[in-house]
Amino acid sequence: MEPRILDAITSPADLKVLTNEELAILAGEIRQEIVATTSVTGGHVASSLGAVDIIVALESLLDMPRDRVVFDVGHQAYAHKLLTGRREAFKTLRTYGGISGFTKPTESPYDVHYSGHASDSLSIATGLAKARQLKGTGEKVVALIGDASLAGGMAFEALNYMGNEQLPLVIILNDNEMSISRNVGALMKHLGNIRANNRYREAREGLQEAMETGGPVTRGLLSLGRNMKESLKQMVIPDSMMFESLGIVCTHPVDGHNIAELRDILALVLEMDGPALVHVVTRKGEGYEPARQDPERFHGTGPYDIATGKAQKKAPRAPSYTEVFGAALADEAVRDGAVVAITAAMTGGTGLKTFAAEFPERFVDVGIAEEQAVGMAAGLAFGGRKPVVALYSTFMQRAVDQMIIDCSLPDANVVFALDRAGLVGDDGPTHHGVFDLAYMRMVPNMRVLAPSDEAELVHALHTALALGGPVSLRYPRGEAEGMPLPDAPELLEVGKSRTVREGADVALLAFGRMVGQARAAADRLAAAGIEASVVDMRWAKPLDEEAVAAAAETRLVVTLEEGVIAGGAGQGVLEVLARQNAKVPAVTLGIPDHFVGQGPVPQLFADLGLDAEGIAATVQKALG
Amino acid sequence: MEPRILDAITSPADLKVLTNEELAILAGEIRQEIVATTSVTGGHVASSLGAVDIIVALESLLDMPRDRVVFDVGHQAYAHKLLTGRREAFKTLRTYGGISGFTKPTESPYDVHYSGHASDSLSIATGLAKARQLKGTGEKVVALIGDASLAGGMAFEALNYMGNEQLPLVIILNDNEMSISRNVGALMKHLGNIRANNRYREAREGLQEAMETGGPVTRGLLSLGRNMKESLKQMVIPDSMMFESLGIVCTHPVDGHNIAELRDILALVLEMDGPALVHVVTRKGEGYEPARQDPERFHGTGPYDIATGKAQKKAPRAPSYTEVFGAALADEAVRDGAVVAITAAMTGGTGLKTFAAEFPERFVDVGIAEEQAVGMAAGLAFGGRKPVVALYSTFMQRAVDQMIIDCSLPDANVVFALDRAGLVGDDGPTHHGVFDLAYMRMVPNMRVLAPSDEAELVHALHTALALGGPVSLRYPRGEAEGMPLPDAPELLEVGKSRTVREGADVALLAFGRMVGQARAAADRLAAAGIEASVVDMRWAKPLDEEAVAAAAETRLVVTLEEGVIAGGAGQGVLEVLARQNAKVPAVTLGIPDHFVGQGPVPQLFADLGLDAEGIAATVQKALG
Repeated sequence: MEPRILDAITSPADLKVLTNEELAILAGEIRQEIVATTSVTGGHVASSLGAVDIIVALESLLDMPRDRVVFDVGHQAYAHKLLTGRREAFKTLRTYGGISGFTKPTESPYDVHYSGHASDSLSIATGLAKARQLKGTGEKVVALIGDASLAGGMAFEALNYMGNEQLPLVIILNDNEMSISRNVGALMKHLGNIRANNRYREAREGLQEAMETGGPVTRGLLSLGRNMKESLKQMVIPDSMMFESLGIVCTHPVDGHNIAELRDILALVLEMDGPALVHVVTRKGEGYEPARQDPERFHGTGPYDIATGKAQKKAPRAPSYTEVFGAALADEAVRDGAVVAITAAMTGGTGLKTFAAEFPERFVDVGIAEEQAVGMAAGLAFGGRKPVVALYSTFMQRAVDQMIIDCSLPDANVVFALDRAGLVGDDGPTHHGVFDLAYMRMVPNMRVLAPSDEAELVHALHTALALGGPVSLRYPRGEAEGMPLPDAPELLEVGKSRTVREGADVALLAFGRMVGQARAAADRLAAAGIEASVVDMRWAKPLDEEAVAAAAETRLVVTLEEGVIAGGAGQGVLEVLARQNAKVPAVTLGIPDHFVGQGPVPQLFADLGLDAEGIAATVQKALG
Repeated sequence: MEPRILDAITSPADLKVLTNEELAILAGEIRQEIVATTSVTGGHVASSLGAVDIIVALESLLDMPRDRVVFDVGHQAYAHKLLTGRREAFKTLRTYGGISGFTKPTESPYDVHYSGHASDSLSIATGLAKARQLKGTGEKVVALIGDASLAGGMAFEALNYMGNEQLPLVIILNDNEMSISRNVGALMKHLGNIRANNRYREAREGLQEAMETGGPVTRGLLSLGRNMKESLKQMVIPDSMMFESLGIVCTHPVDGHNIAELRDILALVLEMDGPALVHVVTRKGEGYEPARQDPERFHGTGPYDIATGKAQKKAPRAPSYTEVFGAALADEAVRDGAVVAITAAMTGGTGLKTFAAEFPERFVDVGIAEEQAVGMAAGLAFGGRKPVVALYSTFMQRAVDQMIIDCSLPDANVVFALDRAGLVGDDGPTHHGVFDLAYMRMVPNMRVLAPSDEAELVHALHTALALGGPVSLRYPRGEAEGMPLPDAPELLEVGKSRTVREGADVALLAFGRMVGQARAAADRLAAAGIEASVVDMRWAKPLDEEAVAAAAETRLVVTLEEGVIAGGAGQGVLEVLARQNAKVPAVTLGIPDHFVGQGPVPQLFADLGLDAEGIAATVQKALG
């Protein structure tokens, strides 16, 4: 077997001696490595494969880690990981204790930030560029961002700033013509028009000719400083009036799988003295046919068979919470013509595909734009509709103000359905949804439901829609508990819990999925002679004060939630106990005051003492 | 005295019978009324005066309240209030129990939403337009938004959505060439270029000619449906490639003080079948010379003398927290060259004018773009700088995710200086900063300071900058406590309180400005024979557990904070007490679970039982 170029690469500096042809071979090796690893670990395959050539071309030109590359979202950065000293570690991708599926600064000096939340790369790049200006240093600052992420308001705010300040930095727009579910937004159409533009090919040919024949021309351009911007514009033909309007030079579309072309244009824009956007057109899954054919399935996948691309999945024990929610919402929409579903580029992830197919008029995907999702929901409610905003808990953080001011202050009929609430597993700290109970609880008018299983989720959604006013419900990622689904949804009484196990020694007041953990802990405690009651609190707000009072009659009250302890429902229970002047000892269990890493959820629960064993041990210790 | 037209207007329907000339007279009367009232009550004068003609012209064409007008920020909506049955009530503007300085749906069916947070109007308008589509009704949807608000990412997300969906709605861009402090951003420059464009006057003349001579032409155009867009474009000459790129028809700049011209163009665009932006150029303060001359002072003003425009202000007892912060930050910047100040269109409001003048290179105003402010701060920190993000507490809500993911997860050296934390007074519920203690406390790595007076603020800022990692400090709007300022700032020990009064009966654990209330309450209690200790907790996170343990030795622990009880520092104290297995009764005082209205802060404190009398009464009741 021929030795691989990849095996000789210990840092991007090693790329400098390679020819374009060797870099292209290296890109192929990287793709093989990505497929080999992700077929075992799972991961974000399609976008990572699509970005390999960009990353190889870019990092061959930079002086890293001095030069800074900010990866938006970051799951396209696998090639970057392989080039920056993590070739061996890459095999542990997304595993417990292994390397992250995103960029992570504590993992490597080559990683700038914890990526994972879209559209933040440009803001961070402006900060790096401003810091460079203040320090008088000369490092390059580059942001790599996908077309879908560019539609986020935060990215626009950064464009608006950098265009005004004329901060020198390079934006590589990885235009793969596809966001996670489908492209939405006028900006996407605009990019599409540019791609379809007749001038595309002409421009490319013009550029290539200039590059091939014009070494001295290129060098001449590079020496022109401020004037170069105009020269470059003439040469590459700016297509985007949108970016030009904002003061940002925008190149013609570049073939994102042609390393020579990429290096030529990147070398040029890296020398510019203002902001420039390189419009790179790539294909998701490039180099691995199954991913090319079905990039959506290979956006984020579990282990798969390399030859066929087929998922190696165990048959699930139960449907996912996501699926149950999607079906339940479609049922609600049949019953109530006012129901509208809104998501932000998470159609599949929030289980809304059925809804979208059955009620296309009443389905809204705003793209990666949570602020718009929530603000628009307020408007729909003002217009007499019943919007359900379905987002991942972690991305709801992007629209906290809109949730407070636009929805809760006017007591608008908006339901927030927060998927992937709690610990999510392999995606790690940027994706755990551990704050929503705290930031929802703090807001007047908001009611907060935390269903404990999929049957409860069906009831919770039904109740939320019936209630009026702002209501949030939250449920975990992945497989549900295997509970039979109800024939018809029930209205839950507001602020009323249900006791699922009686016991006089200790009261376990549990929220959401922690009810199952509490039950298992109660079994263990019973074996040790301690009788624990288990209460499915159902509502994190308003709390069931009667249930709390009853719990105070035991020797110990334990609250359990899959969210941060600080500001969480448990501290709310403590406040109820204080108002009731209860003297019972109490323990609040939940996510402690540190960010939680990646790994299987049961493992993370065990580490945090939130599994049955940990809970039982806490109870036994507290009882003395 | 001639009778005023205004006195005969009970709803916008009454405008329909008026001629353009009469509407212009009415606009003058409205301006007089605005000046007459705000000279007594204070208010947002300059922007309200600038928007009078737009509002008169627009509402004369609509069928309200069926047709919906969404006012962005809303403090330009005084004319709207005067036209919609609130002429008498207007005299109570911004007073306790009086009408709001913003639009407020519970105040009038003509108000769509609680305005006050910039850039949300377009999202809400898309929701209203989508609801109309789903219901099959035909009401008009209009959003009125200023140039500064248009730079917010949320507004861009809405533009991106409506352009793609081609939702029929009208955006009136009130371009007054000035945001609260100064215009920033490439979009502003773009608008400026359009204004300066030679085609401006030509286009206007062309339009006016068409309007004057072409009644049938106009009617013809109106009947063209989808094709009208192209016709309209030809007629008005689209100047903005930016908006056109997004699929939004954009008119040439229109004179915002010419009612006839405004009505002509609005009548046209209101019939369009897709999104249209009317670019209206206005002058802040139009019609009242002192406001014309100094629109910044008349952005938001207290009572003033009508003849001279001079503020009728009592000499302040003490400098404001804002001023103290601004001076302290400038001092820190002298000592430490790495300090950078960032704000989001709140330069004056956060006290940064001195800093901006003394350190222009190290001062960043990103415009109304809190996400960019916080994301850029992360980038500056990654680049080795020490950014201080100065925002109003209520607007920090716009960047909660960036605070968590971009700043706190990587433990970045970012200081959040939150002005107007707690109750703000006359601006009411959209502006009270009552959530920051809760949403900052919940985040790992974040430390939270709540200085109790201006001297403590100086120490808190110094400590935050010295600490490293994310730190937030919060302080109230307005006059500080009159404490002498320290000669040199001191480093506060992390998580250590200071006891400001000893007392064995009850412990008052107070945060921020509530320390003063607690002291006054302690005086009252002493008169009743109850000895209260008063602890200035200083840190809402980490909490001083020793101080809590000491407090538990008394007969009652009372926590006091100027923030929501749900998830606040008081509930954190309860958790410490629970961990310490303390049996002491405890009461958490703060903002209860409803939105708080407008009025003088002492009045609001009294209503909430947070004044000395209320606190003392609570203590006496709890002690039985």
